[in-house]
Amino acid sequence: MQAVMTKEDLTEFLERVFPQVRDDFVIESIDGVNTVMRLKVAERHLRPGGTVSGPSMFGLADVSAYVATLARIGKEALTVTTGCSMDFMRKPEAGKDLIAHATLLKLGRTLSVTSILIYSEGSDAPVARANMTYSIPPK
Amino acid sequence: MQAVMTKEDLTEFLERVFPQVRDDFVIESIDGVNTVMRLKVAERHLRPGGTVSGPSMFGLADVSAYVATLARIGKEALTVTTGCSMDFMRKPEAGKDLIAHATLLKLGRTLSVTSILIYSEGSDAPVARANMTYSIPPK
Amino acid sequence: MQAVMTKEDLTEFLERVFPQVRDDFVIESIDGVNTVMRLKVAERHLRPGGTVSGPSMFGLADVSAYVATLARIGKEALTVTTGCSMDFMRKPEAGKDLIAHATLLKLGRTLSVTSILIYSEGSDAPVARANMTYSIPPK
Amino acid sequence: MQAVMTKEDLTEFLERVFPQVRDDFVIESIDGVNTVMRLKVAERHLRPGGTVSGPSMFGLADVSAYVATLARIGKEALTVTTGCSMDFMRKPEAGKDLIAHATLLKLGRTLSVTSILIYSEGSDAPVARANMTYSIPPK
Repeated sequence: MQAVMTKEDLTEFLERVFPQVRDDFVIESIDGVNTVMRLKVAERHLRPGGTVSGPSMFGLADVSAYVATLARIGKEALTVTTGCSMDFMRKPEAGKDLIAHATLLKLGRTLSVTSILIYSEGSDAPVARANMTYSIPPK
Repeated sequence: MQAVMTKEDLTEFLERVFPQVRDDFVIESIDGVNTVMRLKVAERHLRPGGTVSGPSMFGLADVSAYVATLARIGKEALTVTTGCSMDFMRKPEAGKDLIAHATLLKLGRTLSVTSILIYSEGSDAPVARANMTYSIPPK
Repeated sequence: MQAVMTKEDLTEFLERVFPQVRDDFVIESIDGVNTVMRLKVAERHLRPGGTVSGPSMFGLADVSAYVATLARIGKEALTVTTGCSMDFMRKPEAGKDLIAHATLLKLGRTLSVTSILIYSEGSDAPVARANMTYSIPPK
Repeated sequence: MQAVMTKEDLTEFLERVFPQVRDDFVIESIDGVNTVMRLKVAERHLRPGGTVSGPSMFGLADVSAYVATLARIGKEALTVTTGCSMDFMRKPEAGKDLIAHATLLKLGRTLSVTSILIYSEGSDAPVARANMTYSIPPK
């Protein structure tokens, strides 16, 4: 249950393979089970009324599960999302970053399953929950 | 975030409204947020090979979310499941009860959202995860 | 996109590997993509008020996806459900069987994905929708 | 089961309330049950390798369900997504738009449920399936 990549390794890897999201996400912490990611909320993530868009929250959940999986299996850029479900429960607070707490529930030979809670920074009532399944390519 | 029903109230209520499941489920503990439920695994819950059937695990997740919701809103027998998703992650251990740990993530005016992890008793690797949405009837 | 098992083969196989459900389900029709299954609704499937229980509807969706997958890959009893989601949309009609219409959306090397709509017999407004993911064991 | 808004009304309404997505989506057709939406795939929707990003597919499914719901209830900009699940089944084809076929399965007093299949234009094997639940504000 030990991470095989450091936060610095993963940050560098993410920026290289997903250059288009480098300004959006920050890995706050990882270990082999729990990952904390930040979405630096900017104008382009918002919907009218100042709320964060659904696709932006989906993206945060997705990248959190990706990082949680890679932290254990190492650099497998081909790992792909195969399934997810989300519940949108509260309106994110205007002007706050979103913080995702991801827990890797299973790392199998061909699939990983991660559970994610998303919070407005500083609040303890989750704005969304998600679960993400990643397919892991055979060695 | 306080329960409005005791474990004894809820147990008596469940047995009255769902007599057909009284031999299956035991409420281990409740508070206003967390609920622990036991499925007393018997022959009728099994599939070939001794594993617990999918419908039995679904039923455990569903009743856990129902109890977690009722603990906060009181006896509303008409509260109904509107949505769920589950991931089946490991084979339950033969001859062990299943224990569900349910967390009420949201209690809104018309919907509740509960997240559930299911374990074989004595193990700390979850066999399944679920989320359940209940519709709450207007007062 | 051709079935490799007939309805009779699959019926005989299901009864052998899942003897506990032989009185519940009937395969109405299969081809390589679409499967129609009937749940013969009986007292044991009901909740108070005469509605069919959630676990019974889950079971119907699950076995429909299993049959839809086996129709294409042949007898692989070890194929297991890895994920699902369901929406419960209407109350089933009392005294009617439930009919599931399952469509195999993907048959990959390691996963199948099936979409299911469940109807009270004779009605054209679905009572539930589901999607089921099965893991296919390596040859 | 009749639409209460025309394609032109809905297009004008979407562009006004979601100006940030006006260059992404086109309503191809609507009636009271079925909606067809196009994602005009551009550089900003892509991931390395030329595949369309998960958040872009989520966004397409989400807006399709929104339009399918509004087509029946009229301009209710406050209608919000409460739940979804998706399966990502095939890699979208490079250089092709994505076409979503959405079916409104239920329009209740407080919730709508929509099922969506997403295709690369010109292909008949779906790249993703989704279901979306929208909460409808009380009148």
